[in-house]
Amino acid sequence: MQRTEISAYGEFGLIKYLTEKFKIENPSTLKGVGDDAAVLSYENKKVLVTTDLLLEGIHFDLVYVPLMHLGYKAAVVNFSDIYAMNGAPKQITVSIGVSKRFSVEDLEQLYAGIQMACTKYGVDLIGGDTSASLTGLAISITCIGEADEDKIVYRNGAKENDLICVTGNLGSAYMGLQLLEREKVVFGANSEAQPDFENRDYILQRQLKPEARKDIVELLAEKGVVPTSMMDISDGLSSELLHICTQSNVGCRVYEDKIPINIQAVIMAEELNMSIVTAALNGGEDYELLFTVSLEDYDKIVGMEGVAMVGHITKSALGLQLVGREGDEIELRAQGWNSLEE
Amino acid sequence: MQRTEISAYGEFGLIKYLTEKFKIENPSTLKGVGDDAAVLSYENKKVLVTTDLLLEGIHFDLVYVPLMHLGYKAAVVNFSDIYAMNGAPKQITVSIGVSKRFSVEDLEQLYAGIQMACTKYGVDLIGGDTSASLTGLAISITCIGEADEDKIVYRNGAKENDLICVTGNLGSAYMGLQLLEREKVVFGANSEAQPDFENRDYILQRQLKPEARKDIVELLAEKGVVPTSMMDISDGLSSELLHICTQSNVGCRVYEDKIPINIQAVIMAEELNMSIVTAALNGGEDYELLFTVSLEDYDKIVGMEGVAMVGHITKSALGLQLVGREGDEIELRAQGWNSLEE
Repeated sequence: MQRTEISAYGEFGLIKYLTEKFKIENPSTLKGVGDDAAVLSYENKKVLVTTDLLLEGIHFDLVYVPLMHLGYKAAVVNFSDIYAMNGAPKQITVSIGVSKRFSVEDLEQLYAGIQMACTKYGVDLIGGDTSASLTGLAISITCIGEADEDKIVYRNGAKENDLICVTGNLGSAYMGLQLLEREKVVFGANSEAQPDFENRDYILQRQLKPEARKDIVELLAEKGVVPTSMMDISDGLSSELLHICTQSNVGCRVYEDKIPINIQAVIMAEELNMSIVTAALNGGEDYELLFTVSLEDYDKIVGMEGVAMVGHITKSALGLQLVGREGDEIELRAQGWNSLEE
Repeated sequence: MQRTEISAYGEFGLIKYLTEKFKIENPSTLKGVGDDAAVLSYENKKVLVTTDLLLEGIHFDLVYVPLMHLGYKAAVVNFSDIYAMNGAPKQITVSIGVSKRFSVEDLEQLYAGIQMACTKYGVDLIGGDTSASLTGLAISITCIGEADEDKIVYRNGAKENDLICVTGNLGSAYMGLQLLEREKVVFGANSEAQPDFENRDYILQRQLKPEARKDIVELLAEKGVVPTSMMDISDGLSSELLHICTQSNVGCRVYEDKIPINIQAVIMAEELNMSIVTAALNGGEDYELLFTVSLEDYDKIVGMEGVAMVGHITKSALGLQLVGREGDEIELRAQGWNSLEE
């Protein structure tokens, strides 16, 4: 495979080369890459801003994450934060720091993944930065989105008796990660070993190529439902429930048997002697939506494809309770990923 | 000095602790830190967005850069990009990756510097991210600003006969860097050595604590001058002139004896046997403004404090010419800092 050293391009040449294939699609993007700053127009909408910094060895492992997937995921997880406000992502900036280990072709792969995500979600790349790095790859993405002011959903609006809803299923991305980590160890011991990924495509995809729930945000708008609170599930259901309950000053009861789980994730958990419920509660990286709706919206939510009701909001004094299959109650604690402790 | 390990806080606790001292001042900031995304209102203004990724060992050296200065500078260089569009910075997001070498007190220093810059320039901190890093410190800042659409100044509007203007003076930040690098080598050889910084406070300040030219942007507005093109000088005058001339499809003539230079920078250059003109043309990190104005604005610009006219715009075919003190002409080339080649 061809390898072009990054030094063959200057900094400006490289940015230009990597970004020139991106097209500007949104009317709110007046000026993208190429000046001191991008220029956007948000006259009739509010502006949403979210940002993420991803560092090699902390947030991703290039031993098993292809660069194209990494680019796709890095963009999508930012889109997910905008959807979690009940908004729509419109622009991103992408800055990267790269060590000499990486070639121009590597970066093309990374940007191809970012472009795929941008095209799928209708987002414009409007700026960024490339620089050298002493150690590995650093990716910083800022995403800008739009929302109508009266439709923005914060974390602090959950009320007693609201229904707690979760999209898709939880724990699959974590089980995909466990599988990749196991195969990495096997491969380390015997480089002839072929990874055993049969019937595990779904959990791998959840880990390597997650999607943001644009569909659900659009479906809620179609049905005229504005959640009372919402966030995306990036650190595990427990951690996110804690955020919503703390910021809304409420408690919750969540039923273990209502938590949506995929069969491939269950099988993988059994094989690894892990609890799939723990993975769903604390695993992270699902990028599903957790939201609460008023009881009046019950009829609009029940039967909505891709949405499961998992419990309800209670008074703050009742705390955060997980009701087990036998009716037993456990206090929920946040044990989500904490990348500061790694 | 007290040392609190970062692990004593969780990720969320740390963000909260570091950002809770920041106040929200701008009416355009509807919601800052604490949700999936910040919410801004830009109904009567256009939105400007710029971003920078700074990596330890590439963009800064903590041997001689105090963390508070680093925080200040990291914020200010982003503000500078917004002023360079003839706008005003209003919000920033700050993401950091930190290795175990850093304590909570270190980060407090960094954020104190960021806060000082935010207070001085009237900018709100609205979001960000903290994470572990395997190696050193990574800082990613995105700055959002506002401008009236008809006042935004791009790089591509310079016209033949326009006057070329530069604010402040050039080359001082680079000479400050050379001084710091020299003292670092001296200190490496003899740790008893005391750095010799007498009468060098100005060039040190230019390197360690640069300012963005808010004052000039405000002065131009006051005088009713909208430049035809503008950018900030972060990579040296040559490199920036090349950007403006290329994007505007024009040439330029710049006069060596008109380039504003500070006496401390001249003395330092002599001491180090370096050319101060080369430092001014290619040194970088001045964060002054380079702009062009129509000849009709001559009267408004001449005598404007802090602004020097250094040449004029020509037809593209005439290229980029530096006219020396003896009337000799040299073709300008961009030799600005290229952090990809380090």
